[in-house]
Amino acid sequence: MCGIVGYIGAKQAQDVLINGLSRLEYRGYDSAGIATLENDIIRIEKKKGRLINLEDALEKAPLSGQVGIGHTRWATHGVPSDANAHPHSSVNQEIAVVHNGIIENYMALKNELKDRDHVFVSDTDTEVVAHLLNELYTGDIVKTIQMAMQQLKGSYALGVLCANEPDKIVAVRKDSPLIVGLGDGENFIASDIPAILNYTREVYLLDNGEIAVLTADTIQVMNSDGEIIEKEIFAVDWDPGDAEKGGYDHFMLKEMVEQPKAMMETLMGRCCESGVTFAGLKLNTEMMKNINRIQIVACGTAYHAGMVGKYYFEKFARISVETEAASEYRYKDPIVDKNTLLIVISQSGETADTLAAIRLAKERGAWVLAVTNVVGSSIAREADDVIYTNAGPEIAVASTKAYVTQVGCMMMLASFLGELNGKMEKAEGSRICHGLMMTPGLIEKALETQAVIKAFADKNHKIYDLFYMGRGVDLYTSMEGSLKLKEISYIHSEAYAAGELKHGPIALIEDGTIVVAVCTQENVFEKMLSNIKEVKARGAHVLAIVQEGHQDIATEVDEVWVIPEMDDDITAIPTIVYLQLLAYYLAVARGCDVDKPKNLAKSVTVE
Amino acid sequence: MCGIVGYIGAKQAQDVLINGLSRLEYRGYDSAGIATLENDIIRIEKKKGRLINLEDALEKAPLSGQVGIGHTRWATHGVPSDANAHPHSSVNQEIAVVHNGIIENYMALKNELKDRDHVFVSDTDTEVVAHLLNELYTGDIVKTIQMAMQQLKGSYALGVLCANEPDKIVAVRKDSPLIVGLGDGENFIASDIPAILNYTREVYLLDNGEIAVLTADTIQVMNSDGEIIEKEIFAVDWDPGDAEKGGYDHFMLKEMVEQPKAMMETLMGRCCESGVTFAGLKLNTEMMKNINRIQIVACGTAYHAGMVGKYYFEKFARISVETEAASEYRYKDPIVDKNTLLIVISQSGETADTLAAIRLAKERGAWVLAVTNVVGSSIAREADDVIYTNAGPEIAVASTKAYVTQVGCMMMLASFLGELNGKMEKAEGSRICHGLMMTPGLIEKALETQAVIKAFADKNHKIYDLFYMGRGVDLYTSMEGSLKLKEISYIHSEAYAAGELKHGPIALIEDGTIVVAVCTQENVFEKMLSNIKEVKARGAHVLAIVQEGHQDIATEVDEVWVIPEMDDDITAIPTIVYLQLLAYYLAVARGCDVDKPKNLAKSVTVE
Repeated sequence: MCGIVGYIGAKQAQDVLINGLSRLEYRGYDSAGIATLENDIIRIEKKKGRLINLEDALEKAPLSGQVGIGHTRWATHGVPSDANAHPHSSVNQEIAVVHNGIIENYMALKNELKDRDHVFVSDTDTEVVAHLLNELYTGDIVKTIQMAMQQLKGSYALGVLCANEPDKIVAVRKDSPLIVGLGDGENFIASDIPAILNYTREVYLLDNGEIAVLTADTIQVMNSDGEIIEKEIFAVDWDPGDAEKGGYDHFMLKEMVEQPKAMMETLMGRCCESGVTFAGLKLNTEMMKNINRIQIVACGTAYHAGMVGKYYFEKFARISVETEAASEYRYKDPIVDKNTLLIVISQSGETADTLAAIRLAKERGAWVLAVTNVVGSSIAREADDVIYTNAGPEIAVASTKAYVTQVGCMMMLASFLGELNGKMEKAEGSRICHGLMMTPGLIEKALETQAVIKAFADKNHKIYDLFYMGRGVDLYTSMEGSLKLKEISYIHSEAYAAGELKHGPIALIEDGTIVVAVCTQENVFEKMLSNIKEVKARGAHVLAIVQEGHQDIATEVDEVWVIPEMDDDITAIPTIVYLQLLAYYLAVARGCDVDKPKNLAKSVTVE
Repeated sequence: MCGIVGYIGAKQAQDVLINGLSRLEYRGYDSAGIATLENDIIRIEKKKGRLINLEDALEKAPLSGQVGIGHTRWATHGVPSDANAHPHSSVNQEIAVVHNGIIENYMALKNELKDRDHVFVSDTDTEVVAHLLNELYTGDIVKTIQMAMQQLKGSYALGVLCANEPDKIVAVRKDSPLIVGLGDGENFIASDIPAILNYTREVYLLDNGEIAVLTADTIQVMNSDGEIIEKEIFAVDWDPGDAEKGGYDHFMLKEMVEQPKAMMETLMGRCCESGVTFAGLKLNTEMMKNINRIQIVACGTAYHAGMVGKYYFEKFARISVETEAASEYRYKDPIVDKNTLLIVISQSGETADTLAAIRLAKERGAWVLAVTNVVGSSIAREADDVIYTNAGPEIAVASTKAYVTQVGCMMMLASFLGELNGKMEKAEGSRICHGLMMTPGLIEKALETQAVIKAFADKNHKIYDLFYMGRGVDLYTSMEGSLKLKEISYIHSEAYAAGELKHGPIALIEDGTIVVAVCTQENVFEKMLSNIKEVKARGAHVLAIVQEGHQDIATEVDEVWVIPEMDDDITAIPTIVYLQLLAYYLAVARGCDVDKPKNLAKSVTVE
């Protein structure tokens, strides 16, 4: 979260920066701001709220100059406001800074600086960096940054302008992502590839502790001791069009519609009638013999994919698995050693807590397999093995195509491990692959029901609460459906194991409360019916999702969505699409800004 | 859930039944009803809603007779109504039935009976039983019940009256609890001990498939083939006063106040400076060598105790543990074998899903250790090992003293296993025991802050949502605190891992939304502070719970509750008391019926 962009070249910096920020708004939209250098003077404009506020201000009073940095903020320290917006500068405005991350010792540093008569105008940790650089400045901004790094604790990606050295931008990263874009007579920095995709597709991926010094014609990368580092050029293979809305009302809708294609890309070359293969995967039968523990660690939506993973690892490969939120795992002294396989899942490949979990587990000798969407991301680089989800760039804050492809990877991996450890018959593997190959078509069928889902949403959007329930794998689909709804519609929703509802949460059911009952699993269908009766007896308005053949549930519930008949072991993939669409159309009916939900940001690069 | 009571003797049955039902109302209060036999005629009175409605009706038109059955209902099939209330009878009123459980094939049976011209007046599964018995009746109600048992699928505890055989009550159980009380010239049946505690303290605990035939002077117990079974008398050691409110406004408040004593009883004889001992526990070092998998299975509040258990099993004994909701565990073909230790937790010892989990695991050879509060309960009898929580009878639907004693048992057990498997230093065990022995006093201190908590509740009760967050063990305390609030106040609350909040749920935070931040763990205190800043930046009204020494958090939040300084490893016990009180006073301020929350019932004996 928080987006950074920087430009140096022959164009007007303001235009490039605004263009870049418009592609980074999914990383935060509490405020936006830019700084440019013009005639050795740093000028800053920044505004609370969406980027449009900044654009309006710049239209009235443009900032000229061919060097600049920009920022879009997801607030961590201090409320969203003009004052707390980035860039921040020292009072004399000699140095300007944009920052992503959290300076953990900012309070101590701020108090010391205050004692030395620094005056602060914001509540942010970032302003402390600007003042610190200003105080340490020796006439060489690069050396100054090296000195500051000794004192800064926490995580940071910084873009720095210095009025005394107007021909350069300096960038540095520690535990927060930052890339450098290579142009022709111009160069870029960015927190994320989409920001500069319109200008270049050649980038350097900065590693931890590296500093990049950009002029219009040169890029120098060094470590924190100032030793020059030779970086490899990373060629981005995304189509710039992938990161645009292409006629859809929202990125989220576009990305939901892209799911059949995304799922095909995920399966392609890996999943065929004879079973699953992962080209290039180092993990093999010999190594699996030494593995006595599997842990899946992830955050948010990816955590739900991890829950589905656990379910199928246990079912197909008969291996016990623990799935845990990364923010919990990393601080609890987890039981992890050289016989552990740690599987991490992250769309962006930059999730801070997940990255920390990798480092902790690797220190203790674990083998780390990452499932991620972004080639060259920090997580992809630090893991021992990588499986890419191949979903293409995901821009909407609410993850959709990344989730279904993560689930697809989990199922393939479960089947793969089941074959590796001999717990799964070849025929069983073929059955699952066959099922997975049906999923792109089944997702398409789900997308065709949009009108029905929209009609339900239009009729029922004036609600405050909504409950989901399911058993077995349907529970995890329910959890992910509930999270989607929360994220974009602000309806307070919760998902429950259907059998747990009566141990407490059923108290919240009133006349007309909507309960979505996900009932795709034959072995617990009758049990779900009993639970439906329990909530009906309390007045719930029940929407049931069932496979073809169970339409007769209509006599027991208020609304039924019938999904095509399919193998029970693949329902997690098509079913979530119905719940994504439900969340989407409820949010639209409520007038919510689907692509920029309140308080959220994509790619959580702070803890 | 659902309470059953039956009487045969010299007293007026109505009085005994109403007295019994008044002590069973915690098992359901959707409706209540009784049937008596008077001059060979069955008479029934039953009313929707609380017991008081039935009492009012009986005051106007009492039912005489010295034989009768009574029922208090928690609705599973059909809304709460007079018609759906028990007892149910055949149309000619020759047979009356009260039932706890779910007849799973009731729909098929009902259709068959309808085809044979039976007319049904309710939506319940129970009415089907009455009609079936009536159709099968041969002049011998016991034989008739044996025949019916061949056809009934699902779970049931039944009390049956037959007009043709007015000198007996017949009772039968399968997968739902039922006891028989032994009197002098009178006998009883009941779903639960408190119902008959005023009349007798000698009972038979019926086993699955057993039928009891009661007259005023005799009790015969047989199996489903009619073979007589010799039952042992079980002597109840509860004080009848324990099951009364004793001057408190609510059972819940009384039970919260009893927590210091309950915790002392839990620790007594088990926890001393030299470590933990469990007298009578069969599990030993030799057996532990063969255990390579530990699973904890429970429902609702007990599930949260199981999460704390997992945390400390891993921390103290360095054993990976899976904690799972029983309703999920039993239907997912869990990985369990003879090298598995299954730990189950249940206050009542009758939780249907938990009982099913035990049976499944035992079939596959697992060693089952039960942690329960009720001596002689089904779970206590079926497990291989039992640790009693010794909390005394818990009547309030919202569990409090059972929870803290369950957590106490989990910590002792974690420490015990840590010593057994050599992963824990003796000194470490002493430290934990020392900490645990402080908990009764610390709970008392918590109870002393009632005025502060009540004041906060009085000021803040007009809310619709509330969020809890924590890290590490504070997360599980948060989850249990949130469940308490939901159960009794109907405020939609949720608990989150503090690090997960920003992956979605933070979207629900608005100006003034109350967030309870549980911050008792030093190792993540700074991380909690960052998360508090994140929600403050979105306008949250933050209540922080911190140990003494961290009062200065007051500058960052809106309200602080300072708990005494204590060992970080025991905070789960005193801290939950603050959250119980918060839930209680919020519910009281909102005018909720704390002891009889909407839609809920204690002792969940249906799936």
